[in-house]
Amino acid sequence: MKTPDYITFTDNPQNTLNELLATFQPDKVAFLVDENTKAHCLPLFDQSESELIVIKSGEIHKNLDTCQYIWEQMTDFGFSRKSILINLGGGVIGDMGGFCAATYKRGIRFINFPTTLLAAVDANIGGKLGVDFQGFKNHIGVFQDPDGVVVCDRFLQTLPERELRSGFAEVIKHGLIYDKNYYKGLKQSAFPNYDWNEIIKKSIGIKGAVVAEDPKEAGLRKILNFGHTLGHGIESWYLNSSKSLLHGEAISIGMIMEGFLSLKSGLINESAQKDLTEYILKVYGKYELPPLDEVLPLMLQDKKNVGNQISYSLLEGIGKCGFDQKITTDWIEEAFDYYENLK
Amino acid sequence: MKTPDYITFTDNPQNTLNELLATFQPDKVAFLVDENTKAHCLPLFDQSESELIVIKSGEIHKNLDTCQYIWEQMTDFGFSRKSILINLGGGVIGDMGGFCAATYKRGIRFINFPTTLLAAVDANIGGKLGVDFQGFKNHIGVFQDPDGVVVCDRFLQTLPERELRSGFAEVIKHGLIYDKNYYKGLKQSAFPNYDWNEIIKKSIGIKGAVVAEDPKEAGLRKILNFGHTLGHGIESWYLNSSKSLLHGEAISIGMIMEGFLSLKSGLINESAQKDLTEYILKVYGKYELPPLDEVLPLMLQDKKNVGNQISYSLLEGIGKCGFDQKITTDWIEEAFDYYENLK
Repeated sequence: MKTPDYITFTDNPQNTLNELLATFQPDKVAFLVDENTKAHCLPLFDQSESELIVIKSGEIHKNLDTCQYIWEQMTDFGFSRKSILINLGGGVIGDMGGFCAATYKRGIRFINFPTTLLAAVDANIGGKLGVDFQGFKNHIGVFQDPDGVVVCDRFLQTLPERELRSGFAEVIKHGLIYDKNYYKGLKQSAFPNYDWNEIIKKSIGIKGAVVAEDPKEAGLRKILNFGHTLGHGIESWYLNSSKSLLHGEAISIGMIMEGFLSLKSGLINESAQKDLTEYILKVYGKYELPPLDEVLPLMLQDKKNVGNQISYSLLEGIGKCGFDQKITTDWIEEAFDYYENLK
Repeated sequence: MKTPDYITFTDNPQNTLNELLATFQPDKVAFLVDENTKAHCLPLFDQSESELIVIKSGEIHKNLDTCQYIWEQMTDFGFSRKSILINLGGGVIGDMGGFCAATYKRGIRFINFPTTLLAAVDANIGGKLGVDFQGFKNHIGVFQDPDGVVVCDRFLQTLPERELRSGFAEVIKHGLIYDKNYYKGLKQSAFPNYDWNEIIKKSIGIKGAVVAEDPKEAGLRKILNFGHTLGHGIESWYLNSSKSLLHGEAISIGMIMEGFLSLKSGLINESAQKDLTEYILKVYGKYELPPLDEVLPLMLQDKKNVGNQISYSLLEGIGKCGFDQKITTDWIEEAFDYYENLK
């Protein structure tokens, strides 16, 4: 387990920010927020010496149009290469704000204050920055670590439970792909009794260890995509529709289906597959599935693919995961049917 | 002197490309060209197994709209992370194609075949990628080295002389900032008698040495900006007007003015300043200057600046250059007047 050294845990975000700014000595500072973090998280900071960029919340605004607005604002503030952007928000703010900072004048510093569980355990760790493009998730972006990630569980208290539960899907995933005991421990408690600071530390440790071994996703890092091949396809479909499905909700579907594919491929036994399916269903319930023929083309753009072949990351037991596995379309159909028929 | 190891000199671009592709084993390949390189340079390649992306030539198209078109095309081709983009063109194609490749699915490989002198001696070396934004030069971009740069002087033979002369401004600059004898040698010959392969090798060696010491432009690399602080401001102004001024033409003005500022600052003596002014005037002649008050705001966005203070890189002799020098606006006015009154 390795916590990346750019991460700080704190009870006092303003103090930690002051320390970081004293280190970096920026000429200008701006907060990037959405309407939610502006209302609930920004008041924890002194804003007297910083600029403010406000964007609309939601994955649907994680696109190049919003980037252009952010770049324009930084330009208007006279941001130089010595300026710093502070991303105060969830995964969308961290991914998009990071991308805008990493490309503004070919790169300025940025610090993330994740305000959602999803951002704290996943999006802010590992240096994946970017935005969606033409309905494809994170299609345009770069790899770059933030200059700081400050985790404060006071922000999580401002979250709606649905958001918290969405982030929890990545936590379950970390247990399933890397740490059997972690997974077992999660099952022994339930909302709202989790110690979030402990969970965030543990999950960051797992993700940090995987990413440190393979930062550019040439191999091992792909195991973090368990549940995400089908999950992203389903999430992309919802993104282009009028219905709402959060990232972790899509991943809950993806993990059940890819657990089923792990069983079909003979990689896990039936009791493990049943166990994870029941647990995930207990936490999330079931969601309406899009038509398979509309999800498949979206999956073809998955970044793990080579040529026109879709690659999966499938479980090889509880706490162990492989990658670059190939699955035929008729098995995907079976996985859809399997989910559809779950009680 | 150090030639970066991603550079190859060749007489047979197709052979060299075959060797690079055999090394990288891409699943898909596309050429990025403009209408000029499509007509004059692309025929030197076998295109039977590659896709083609054609954009309009000119700095005015080096923007995010064109990037979106390039990203769309790569998406339509089903480009994966194992695909390769081949940038066949001048500085615009290399900077913009490189940026699109470096950000597509968070980064795919790209190989540059510079077809202009400017691209061969400057734009393709040093990893500066990006596009213009709201009239500011290279405002959005990243630092990343190409996976290969293949120099072939057969491409230069397809260039109009005005283009060749524009690129030559960077060659003069390399002599002025780094190598007195190189500068003297350039003066002893004249168009069209230069040995371009020799010049490209020498200039790449100088730029490569400077960049290797300071890849992210924290210090020394800024000397490559001699002539570019005022030059870029003037170029940006022309970019927003209906008149045409090539990059090297703007830099010829910038070098004369910043040579004058070097003299005013007591960094070089009058005979050196007169010498470079006369030589540059002999090669380029004079161009019409934009109004100073319209150029100044454009210079405030220069990427070398910190806060609202414009930084200059001024000569400290022929073959030596400093950086982070500050100049007051009234001296800039004097520099404009000086250029205006040159015979």
